[in-house]
Amino acid sequence: MKIIIDAMGGDQAPLAPVEGGLRAVKELGVEVIFTGQELAIRDSLKRLGHQDLPQGVELVPASEVITMEDNPARAFKDKKDSSMTVGLNLLKEGRGDAFVSAGSTGALLSGATLVIKRIRGIRRAALAPVIPTAVGNTVLIDSGATAEGSPEYLLQFAFMGSYYAKRFLGVQEPRVGLLNIGAEPSKGLDLQRAAYGLLQQADQEGRIRFVGNIEGREAVCQGVDVLVSDGFTGNIFLKTIEGTALFMSQCMKEMFLSSTKSKLCALAMKNEVAGLKKRFDAAEIGGTPLLGISKPVIKAHGSSSAYAFLNAARQAREVASSGIIEDITANVEYMRLPDPEKAK
Amino acid sequence: MKIIIDAMGGDQAPLAPVEGGLRAVKELGVEVIFTGQELAIRDSLKRLGHQDLPQGVELVPASEVITMEDNPARAFKDKKDSSMTVGLNLLKEGRGDAFVSAGSTGALLSGATLVIKRIRGIRRAALAPVIPTAVGNTVLIDSGATAEGSPEYLLQFAFMGSYYAKRFLGVQEPRVGLLNIGAEPSKGLDLQRAAYGLLQQADQEGRIRFVGNIEGREAVCQGVDVLVSDGFTGNIFLKTIEGTALFMSQCMKEMFLSSTKSKLCALAMKNEVAGLKKRFDAAEIGGTPLLGISKPVIKAHGSSSAYAFLNAARQAREVASSGIIEDITANVEYMRLPDPEKAK
Repeated sequence: MKIIIDAMGGDQAPLAPVEGGLRAVKELGVEVIFTGQELAIRDSLKRLGHQDLPQGVELVPASEVITMEDNPARAFKDKKDSSMTVGLNLLKEGRGDAFVSAGSTGALLSGATLVIKRIRGIRRAALAPVIPTAVGNTVLIDSGATAEGSPEYLLQFAFMGSYYAKRFLGVQEPRVGLLNIGAEPSKGLDLQRAAYGLLQQADQEGRIRFVGNIEGREAVCQGVDVLVSDGFTGNIFLKTIEGTALFMSQCMKEMFLSSTKSKLCALAMKNEVAGLKKRFDAAEIGGTPLLGISKPVIKAHGSSSAYAFLNAARQAREVASSGIIEDITANVEYMRLPDPEKAK
Repeated sequence: MKIIIDAMGGDQAPLAPVEGGLRAVKELGVEVIFTGQELAIRDSLKRLGHQDLPQGVELVPASEVITMEDNPARAFKDKKDSSMTVGLNLLKEGRGDAFVSAGSTGALLSGATLVIKRIRGIRRAALAPVIPTAVGNTVLIDSGATAEGSPEYLLQFAFMGSYYAKRFLGVQEPRVGLLNIGAEPSKGLDLQRAAYGLLQQADQEGRIRFVGNIEGREAVCQGVDVLVSDGFTGNIFLKTIEGTALFMSQCMKEMFLSSTKSKLCALAMKNEVAGLKKRFDAAEIGGTPLLGISKPVIKAHGSSSAYAFLNAARQAREVASSGIIEDITANVEYMRLPDPEKAK
């Protein structure tokens, strides 16, 4: 198994991706290819104690870097020698089994769609982060790859999310919920009402396990295995969880710092507080696969640490080896609208 | 000032609304009218130590109760002698200055729209709860009164939310943000892009203070004074905050119960934990006004305690006395689309 890592993507590049990649070689037994500016990568390797490329590590130079200022839709074409473009081309050519990048989400999505292509029949790729909820973990799909939704996209997201939950989270029969503003089938906008019908039908045919609409509140504090949404709503949902968790953590911190007594408690409960923090830590999961793309592409969080890159590499290995892409490919026919006229 | 209270609405009715109403008479110096089943209300009064109607308290009997099982759009017409319908008619006739109900949101919205009517020129009423954020408090408008959005609705929500933040929260120049999935004006769906233009124009004319798009994360952990959204997205946002706050509270509770040491800390930090809890407690705010209705109608939370009803009555007094409805009425002409053809 060989994982291609964009060494120039993310706030802490190239040190964090390089260190994460080295740990992946050591701890996961994979090989890695770093793409990016050779001098910068070699400098990071030196800072980590390596004068030369260690066993299992390759370096493919790329002179350019795609930044957040680049137009996501054009970046991949404008910067042909970027670490991201070079990495995606290596994946296309079969020089590696999966690609990990913490660079611009939009550029990665455009690049993956243009270079690697979607699985035949899949209308849109989706971002499917695993988020902590009361059931443990929930696959949210789509968290913002495609803002506009269609009933068919949502049906495809439900299938793709189910395969991912099955293979990656080990859930035998993933329960799929539709993110909505009420439980009844009539709730929501036209999009949700139409998607509800398609999901119900797929459930009746035994292809997915649809448990109905689920509100934002229950989606977090009760949870399902797969939460289906258009990208706009999914992104609002995800960012709101992040914001609330951050805000409450700050309030909790203030609480622990408010008096001498509470400071002593904070000290006494150090491990418990760390455990709570870990439960909400994005680095534990690693990254977000671009489901629907025909080869494994993993988006790591922009602020990824070396540890987060290690986990993203682990996730890349999982997506590459577990048959998720084969599952989706084999079942595309069940994810289409009956009437091709309606399929946008 | 006389507040009409639906004594049959909410999980703890009639005891909680009756007790809350009595506290409002005592603590706020207002008069109240209870609507609902006479025997049940008198029984609650007796349980609170009153054999007769105390000074400042009236009772207007209504034999029916609108439940969550009733069709919201029809409930108001089907149950003409319900506590909600009778209350709204009293408000219409000028027998009271504001109406508070913890009953079905949908039924209250339909009833208020049909009996009290919207302010002339206002296209849709909106629910505008005050939510705790890093800036203290944010008016979210709309949190779900109207699922479907239009750019003009959002423009009107921005104005109404601003007047409410000014009068109710005492913010001089409320900063208005548009809930979206990115900061750039091009982000979001057609709805957000069109609304962005209208809000920017209103800002340039000096009528509101529009600070741009705001993502779910920043909306909570940085915060604006008024957060504008279509009802679908606003409802997802609100419920997700509630769910995350509840989930994290449960995790925190588990943390404090995990060992003898942490249990001792929980005991030692009792007041601090209570303070944190209070900060996120919906009862502190009271209820949610139906902005855009031509008289003050306040929706109290279904689970409202007596204390929550007291705060809802306080809020009703505020909406009735502070000139919010007059503000909206006087400025409706600035909240319309230039081309009446586009106004849906």
